[in-house]
Amino acid sequence: MELVTRVNIPSVVRVKPGALDRLGLYLRRSGHSPAVLLSSQGLVPEYLERAERSLAEHGIERLETVEVAEASFEFASSLFTRLPGKAAAVVGLGGGKALDVAKYVAFLARRPYYATPTSLSNDGFCSPQSSLTIAGRRRSLAAALPHAVVLDLDVCGQAPRPLWLSGIGDLVCKLTAIFDWKLAFRRQGLPVNDFAALLSDATVYQFLAQPSFDREGARLLGTALMLNGVAMEICGSSRPASGSEHLISHALDGISKRPRLHGLQVGVATYLVSLLQENQSERIGRVLDETGFWEAVRSDPFSLAEWRQAIRLAPAIKEDFFTILSEPGALDEAERLLTADPRLRACFAD
Amino acid sequence: MELVTRVNIPSVVRVKPGALDRLGLYLRRSGHSPAVLLSSQGLVPEYLERAERSLAEHGIERLETVEVAEASFEFASSLFTRLPGKAAAVVGLGGGKALDVAKYVAFLARRPYYATPTSLSNDGFCSPQSSLTIAGRRRSLAAALPHAVVLDLDVCGQAPRPLWLSGIGDLVCKLTAIFDWKLAFRRQGLPVNDFAALLSDATVYQFLAQPSFDREGARLLGTALMLNGVAMEICGSSRPASGSEHLISHALDGISKRPRLHGLQVGVATYLVSLLQENQSERIGRVLDETGFWEAVRSDPFSLAEWRQAIRLAPAIKEDFFTILSEPGALDEAERLLTADPRLRACFAD
Amino acid sequence: MELVTRVNIPSVVRVKPGALDRLGLYLRRSGHSPAVLLSSQGLVPEYLERAERSLAEHGIERLETVEVAEASFEFASSLFTRLPGKAAAVVGLGGGKALDVAKYVAFLARRPYYATPTSLSNDGFCSPQSSLTIAGRRRSLAAALPHAVVLDLDVCGQAPRPLWLSGIGDLVCKLTAIFDWKLAFRRQGLPVNDFAALLSDATVYQFLAQPSFDREGARLLGTALMLNGVAMEICGSSRPASGSEHLISHALDGISKRPRLHGLQVGVATYLVSLLQENQSERIGRVLDETGFWEAVRSDPFSLAEWRQAIRLAPAIKEDFFTILSEPGALDEAERLLTADPRLRACFAD
Amino acid sequence: MELVTRVNIPSVVRVKPGALDRLGLYLRRSGHSPAVLLSSQGLVPEYLERAERSLAEHGIERLETVEVAEASFEFASSLFTRLPGKAAAVVGLGGGKALDVAKYVAFLARRPYYATPTSLSNDGFCSPQSSLTIAGRRRSLAAALPHAVVLDLDVCGQAPRPLWLSGIGDLVCKLTAIFDWKLAFRRQGLPVNDFAALLSDATVYQFLAQPSFDREGARLLGTALMLNGVAMEICGSSRPASGSEHLISHALDGISKRPRLHGLQVGVATYLVSLLQENQSERIGRVLDETGFWEAVRSDPFSLAEWRQAIRLAPAIKEDFFTILSEPGALDEAERLLTADPRLRACFAD
Repeated sequence: MELVTRVNIPSVVRVKPGALDRLGLYLRRSGHSPAVLLSSQGLVPEYLERAERSLAEHGIERLETVEVAEASFEFASSLFTRLPGKAAAVVGLGGGKALDVAKYVAFLARRPYYATPTSLSNDGFCSPQSSLTIAGRRRSLAAALPHAVVLDLDVCGQAPRPLWLSGIGDLVCKLTAIFDWKLAFRRQGLPVNDFAALLSDATVYQFLAQPSFDREGARLLGTALMLNGVAMEICGSSRPASGSEHLISHALDGISKRPRLHGLQVGVATYLVSLLQENQSERIGRVLDETGFWEAVRSDPFSLAEWRQAIRLAPAIKEDFFTILSEPGALDEAERLLTADPRLRACFAD
Repeated sequence: MELVTRVNIPSVVRVKPGALDRLGLYLRRSGHSPAVLLSSQGLVPEYLERAERSLAEHGIERLETVEVAEASFEFASSLFTRLPGKAAAVVGLGGGKALDVAKYVAFLARRPYYATPTSLSNDGFCSPQSSLTIAGRRRSLAAALPHAVVLDLDVCGQAPRPLWLSGIGDLVCKLTAIFDWKLAFRRQGLPVNDFAALLSDATVYQFLAQPSFDREGARLLGTALMLNGVAMEICGSSRPASGSEHLISHALDGISKRPRLHGLQVGVATYLVSLLQENQSERIGRVLDETGFWEAVRSDPFSLAEWRQAIRLAPAIKEDFFTILSEPGALDEAERLLTADPRLRACFAD
Repeated sequence: MELVTRVNIPSVVRVKPGALDRLGLYLRRSGHSPAVLLSSQGLVPEYLERAERSLAEHGIERLETVEVAEASFEFASSLFTRLPGKAAAVVGLGGGKALDVAKYVAFLARRPYYATPTSLSNDGFCSPQSSLTIAGRRRSLAAALPHAVVLDLDVCGQAPRPLWLSGIGDLVCKLTAIFDWKLAFRRQGLPVNDFAALLSDATVYQFLAQPSFDREGARLLGTALMLNGVAMEICGSSRPASGSEHLISHALDGISKRPRLHGLQVGVATYLVSLLQENQSERIGRVLDETGFWEAVRSDPFSLAEWRQAIRLAPAIKEDFFTILSEPGALDEAERLLTADPRLRACFAD
Repeated sequence: MELVTRVNIPSVVRVKPGALDRLGLYLRRSGHSPAVLLSSQGLVPEYLERAERSLAEHGIERLETVEVAEASFEFASSLFTRLPGKAAAVVGLGGGKALDVAKYVAFLARRPYYATPTSLSNDGFCSPQSSLTIAGRRRSLAAALPHAVVLDLDVCGQAPRPLWLSGIGDLVCKLTAIFDWKLAFRRQGLPVNDFAALLSDATVYQFLAQPSFDREGARLLGTALMLNGVAMEICGSSRPASGSEHLISHALDGISKRPRLHGLQVGVATYLVSLLQENQSERIGRVLDETGFWEAVRSDPFSLAEWRQAIRLAPAIKEDFFTILSEPGALDEAERLLTADPRLRACFAD
């Protein structure tokens, strides 16, 4: 009887300069007091102070501030089991780990979750999963979209350049992820949710049209990553955000002596698989040129041997997950490109 | 108790070349037979044939094909009252009028509605309202988002150039509409739904980044207009899609001897109010340059007197609707710009 | 991806003595001002005064009070087309006709609808349809559940006895309607929504367990009829509330010189078809004994000839609607029972 | 913009004799294969065999059958972390513990949960919480309503009498719980959701009207308990199902040497607090008479000392939870009634 489809989005979205200092206001408007604050280990101290001050100024009782050093299911569970019953909201502040843990604690407690990222290094701040380890092994666990996304454009705009570039890597990958999704449809009939695919796709271009490392750039990149998280929620799968390029990055995480930032790995892998896909490689390459992405990668190059191994492992990382890497000859060609393509060649040390 | 917000989107979205010939397939997958088809007066006969053939090929009984000449509440009501009880779906095929009527008939009958636009001249094919006259006066009536959007990229790609340009006009206006929305917040506290505003905003850039009049252009423009319709649904208002530039266009509709295509009026008004807003005028102007928009307008210029009058009438077109035109001196300045700005000057005959 | 099913219920439900005098309070809490009031022709003047006074006392501007004499689509449409744009809510006060019209106007305008019944003569005050005529022919039109049900137990408790009895007739019929639904499943595979069927069924017993014509009786009968309306919404069909007994009543409406109250017709028909179904006839008969239902019917008896004709017409009243009357020999047996069963025999004058 | 309120209900409800043997059919219809089965320790072996056979017959792969001996968060978490990624559904079969654990595992995994109770001893089979211990202490953890309720009337109808009586105890308590809810509104302004209260209330009477220990009794009791779980989901609190009588039972759980079945404790406490509330005590007492409830309690009497202590502890069991026990003098009076009321007196051994 439903004539349309209903999907979830965050109830509160505030994307603006100074949003961090209004955090308490946003909780107060929703009557979410008292709250628990989970922040990243190593967070810029000023950001934590501003968040705490804003809560105090708006009369939001803070039950506790927990520093999150480890993104594990075990840690998140233990936080949940000792969460005070009267906690009315969970606030995550900082980078990926703190946000993944805070999101999961809030999910277990069925409490509203406020995502307050301090950088835009990946799309996790507004996705419906938490990336947590279980018994040391990284898993993507079902959780819920945040109740609120509080994205301070000045704070994120001042994030270190490598975090920006990681976010850009996690953005351009949508182009190859969607290609893989459609390929999986043609080869195996996997249904494609056109709405999610179009939304995900749309998000890429707005930032690519005018990449910059300032307030406006943060607004466009932040919006793009957020809408991408919503696209995943809409189709109930990570397909619009994650394809063969993520398989390679996941494989690297498992075997690298020193894994790099998620989005740096993903960005390089995106360019690589775009060549296999014959899919917008020039556009992707050029954006990575213009934003200084390649330069950053080359300043701390990858291990060629590890990438070769990762390419071989990638197709089996997820069960039943068809991508360009499942095509005959794709792995050999991918390996060849690592040294044959000039942009890629310069990314490797050995 | 709701931790997130739930919003409606179309259940089926098919944006691809040849989608028209698969229309019957989409209805069959959802078990929507029999169906009623409402098509535009003057529709390219081949399109109607292809739609009917597709329904037939996939075993969808067609109860009737109704040609829609008039987008009025009275006509839509009368179609509704004689809609056969067994009609399981309503299909709208063609341009704005047919789609507005079909959407409304489906809304009254609480039946799934399939929007099959043959051009992208405005954002009505996927909005939650129908633009219909009541007793001869145009009104925007609450309806529902389509159940399905079937957008054939080849069909829309081959639409006459003026229809394309009208769609572009109805796209760039989002930039001024959102400015007006935020202005109304600052001046009168009207709440802005950041998610809807960001979504609406995001939609503009993807097409502007690479405007073209082909399949790919149709895909980007169609996606942008569709997401914009969804943004309106999300915030429950037309604010993300319609600001002062629409007020001027509505005023023109009321007084012009010969109103032009909706998006042509809106596009010129968008550029005009962007000057008042000091908001991205150069970007807007340049896109209209590059796409041949100005040229098209100049080939059949507007009446300066009518525009002067429309500007004066615009602020009162909607009750309680604050825009840049509500600011002191704005009307005088707007009128001055009609002849002072070179791009605008060339749009008027007298 | 949805693990559970989402269904609509009214947002506000107030079932208590004196609720009528708090009507304005309920609108104010939701910020629903100004409002339009639609009331029944012939309504007890005191009730209208109390409603208007309550609105005034709580600062709800009343744009207009419209007296509803006719429950037609044409009348509802015309009210809709002249509804002021600023009307924030539609209030229906009185009996079935006013409530059906108010519900439909609110549906067209997509405005919140407040149902304020002054009697419990049928289940229409909280159902998702409006019973309206189109070109003089009665139809059940899709609408929406009320936003608010405001049921004053003292007002409804003091309603004339025939209206109470009509409500009881429209309640006991759920027993035969659900039997017919399950029969249609066994014979034709029509899906039964067990949740809706159980909910509908549950509603009957609470009133039958202690029927009375007072506050408490109004509470139980009102709750039962309301939950029944929700059951219809849940399954998207009238099946949990309407079976063969309603077919007979609809047929009577079409042919009777002087149709009686809906629930009086339905109650007698329910007992009749329960005999055909061999389904709880004694329980139904006894409740109608105890509540004085039969007595009321006998004081103004039906025409035997009309009932005979109605039974013959009933199976064809709705397309594709299998009931006990579709079984071989059922019509003959039904006709025989009219005079063979002692309770029934006494209901007819000739 | 939402004119009505949306609430969750189970997507599949099958309440009928032989439903257990159709379990596999229900999973197959939804495409839920493979599945994991969690069953109660000590379950009648035949029931497990029938469930497994039904899954096999309908082609549902069973990944594992886990016997649940302990309803703890720790155990549920560990099951979740080793749940195979391809598990498409979680089936809970048996009594409270297995169902609570299965519900929670499904919630963590965001997989559809099939509740297949083999008795009706409490309302947990269709509630949105799981009652689990954390570090040995019982907690009510937020989870989700079941996707499916598969209630075999013959299986539940043949459950041991004490389980039936426990379910009856957990049903009559709704009368006192709702009284306490309304009292908390009058005393402290706690909002009452009238719809949830009426739904909860309605569920009691249908079984009380004709209590029996057979198929029909199981249908009425099962429906009542299920609708009660839905009432909790609707208002987002346990208030419609749990008041002062549950506080006493929870206190007993903490201090008793040998806690009895949940519903036996709750039933006695319900009668006790109904006397304090002066609320339908005779009706409650009589139903417990007629069903043999008192007799069962007396066959294994409670400790008077424990009850005295439990009454004193009860008001502090939940923070901010006003009930009749919060009224001045209530505890003394409750204690007095334990020995002064003849029905109660007979329930205690010392």
